[in-house]
Amino acid sequence: MAQDFNVTPWEVKGKVDYDKLIVQFGTQKLTEELKEKTRRLINDELHVMLRRNVFFSHRDYDLILKDYEEGKGFFLYTGRAPSLGMHIGHLIPFIFTKWLQDKFKVNVYIELTDDEKFMRNLDYSLDQTRQWAYDNILDIIAVGFDPDKTFIFQDTEYIKNMYPVAIKIAKKLTFNEVRATFGLDTSSNIGIIFYPALQIAPTMFEHKRCLIPAGIDQDPYWRLQRDIAESLGYYKAAQIHSKFLPPLTGPEGKMSSSQPESAIYLTDGPETVKNKIMKYAFSGGQPTIELHRKYGGNPDIDVSFQWLYMFFEPDDSKIKKIEEEYRSGKMLTGELKSILVEKLNDFLIEHRNKREEAKKLVNTFKYEGELAREMWKKIHE
Amino acid sequence: MAQDFNVTPWEVKGKVDYDKLIVQFGTQKLTEELKEKTRRLINDELHVMLRRNVFFSHRDYDLILKDYEEGKGFFLYTGRAPSLGMHIGHLIPFIFTKWLQDKFKVNVYIELTDDEKFMRNLDYSLDQTRQWAYDNILDIIAVGFDPDKTFIFQDTEYIKNMYPVAIKIAKKLTFNEVRATFGLDTSSNIGIIFYPALQIAPTMFEHKRCLIPAGIDQDPYWRLQRDIAESLGYYKAAQIHSKFLPPLTGPEGKMSSSQPESAIYLTDGPETVKNKIMKYAFSGGQPTIELHRKYGGNPDIDVSFQWLYMFFEPDDSKIKKIEEEYRSGKMLTGELKSILVEKLNDFLIEHRNKREEAKKLVNTFKYEGELAREMWKKIHE
Repeated sequence: MAQDFNVTPWEVKGKVDYDKLIVQFGTQKLTEELKEKTRRLINDELHVMLRRNVFFSHRDYDLILKDYEEGKGFFLYTGRAPSLGMHIGHLIPFIFTKWLQDKFKVNVYIELTDDEKFMRNLDYSLDQTRQWAYDNILDIIAVGFDPDKTFIFQDTEYIKNMYPVAIKIAKKLTFNEVRATFGLDTSSNIGIIFYPALQIAPTMFEHKRCLIPAGIDQDPYWRLQRDIAESLGYYKAAQIHSKFLPPLTGPEGKMSSSQPESAIYLTDGPETVKNKIMKYAFSGGQPTIELHRKYGGNPDIDVSFQWLYMFFEPDDSKIKKIEEEYRSGKMLTGELKSILVEKLNDFLIEHRNKREEAKKLVNTFKYEGELAREMWKKIHE
Repeated sequence: MAQDFNVTPWEVKGKVDYDKLIVQFGTQKLTEELKEKTRRLINDELHVMLRRNVFFSHRDYDLILKDYEEGKGFFLYTGRAPSLGMHIGHLIPFIFTKWLQDKFKVNVYIELTDDEKFMRNLDYSLDQTRQWAYDNILDIIAVGFDPDKTFIFQDTEYIKNMYPVAIKIAKKLTFNEVRATFGLDTSSNIGIIFYPALQIAPTMFEHKRCLIPAGIDQDPYWRLQRDIAESLGYYKAAQIHSKFLPPLTGPEGKMSSSQPESAIYLTDGPETVKNKIMKYAFSGGQPTIELHRKYGGNPDIDVSFQWLYMFFEPDDSKIKKIEEEYRSGKMLTGELKSILVEKLNDFLIEHRNKREEAKKLVNTFKYEGELAREMWKKIHE
């Protein structure tokens, strides 16, 4: 059956049908029951990204809740291939991971793959990818993780502690098994071929179940982990999958650093944000004010509305009102965009303030926090 | 042209024609001129393995001597995939490397590839290969290296310091480029595919030319290094190649741990040594004493003689006398074997004494010697 979208770890094309994707990837739908159980266990309101199904799919999240309920606990793992600049979409897994940490009081491990990024691209030097790692770490810390329950590490620094478990993982994975998932072929370099072992290693940092919040495009990577984890005495990694924040330019694909107009960067100033949204944000409105008043806008395809819905307007009654007014034609596209511009700029200004403060916390998260100190003493076998 | 021998890094078959091998591998013959220059530079007698052409071939050994002469210096690198027990043949590169260190007063780096050995064989655990590394290190230390100019390291321990340069190497080598040399295919595990980068990394521990003494079968590995070293700002590794100490069982192939009767192990006691030599050592003698007295023995194919010649009788006048007497028929095979048994046992008893003393020196060579302390502070980029 031909379909008009395609999701792989290195490409998202077309308008994604997320229900189909669940079937295609063989994941589980995040049911109302599981959400209700989460609410009960944390005894608090659910995060907006759960309430509104930004996180919509999972593997073994039910077992994570069961382990938590039974006092066995779990831990969280996420990461990032360092890049010159992070955009808004990159923050989604971190924001959600931080929320899970707050509510469940669990450890978070964050891997910065300075080695992979270097080996993936002929143009990048290792000095560059390490500098990007440092910069990205500031943005990650700014999200607000618990400094004593969070360990942020770069592969080139933490390799010694991970290497024994990484080679045990590597021994279980053949080139044939990783080539398709990681987009490799026989002309790939031998470092990038080994790298999957280092991506999997942190899922074995504790003898508890590991939960990975990430975009659903990352799911194929963790299938390899799930194939081998138990043979090494660890748990299959659980995952909770998010949808993609649509690119500014339209409801298809995902934001891409190679198309700067498709994304809002964390460094974009208020004027840049305003210009980008006004100029590029794909609109669900009508061609003229008259038609818009008459027929109304379509929030389902309107990127500004989607960004508010998925991320920037967590107040349920407010988003409902915006949706109704936009759909009815009472609210014009320009007005909708202005709401987003204001929300976005508020968010970014606060983020950048926190990013400044984060500079003082890098050592804590990497080396001196409670969990970090513990981790530097461990050799993972 | 069909030939009756084959030499690869993982197999030596048939009676090796070393002159042909030089042509086939494209290496250089170790000329009398180079040996004479060596003698002049060290102002001392040459090692028996040089005098008798056990080391017979090289790549850039002339440049090593030139660099030494010009005061630029050089360094030595050798290593070992840890195994349950080492045999006499395994000591050849170490004994020769130690001699070079003595004469040229240069640093020696010795890599124990506990990771590779673990990943190469499904039956081995990492605990095993690390235990073997410890055991083999004792045998290596017993050879008598300078504790302040020698750094012995295991991959799983020193990985952090090597990893940056290893991934720079890895980025330059594709799977296609390493597969043939390292005997890999697409069903190889991803760890063993990365491993060539870790084998090459120590050739870049100093910004001087590196000399690798090793069996000529190892040459193909270093061709990969020579292809990429200069693009990373380092020298092509120089090599000095040895012949194979023939297996006890005959002049073909090389000693193999899978055929215990073909080798003398460093742990073999005096009676075992005697029994093995008497029973298995391939003889160049005649079938009966009468025929032997009449026609004489053939030292060229006699393994006992070859072992004395290559390794255990360094006294040139004594080996000449043995050769003459054996060839003339004056010396019988049993007498020749007895000489070897005595020499071998003297060597092994002394080796095991030194091995006992080595236990106190492991920390020095790995962590606390002058060079070791320096190395643990370095990150190789």
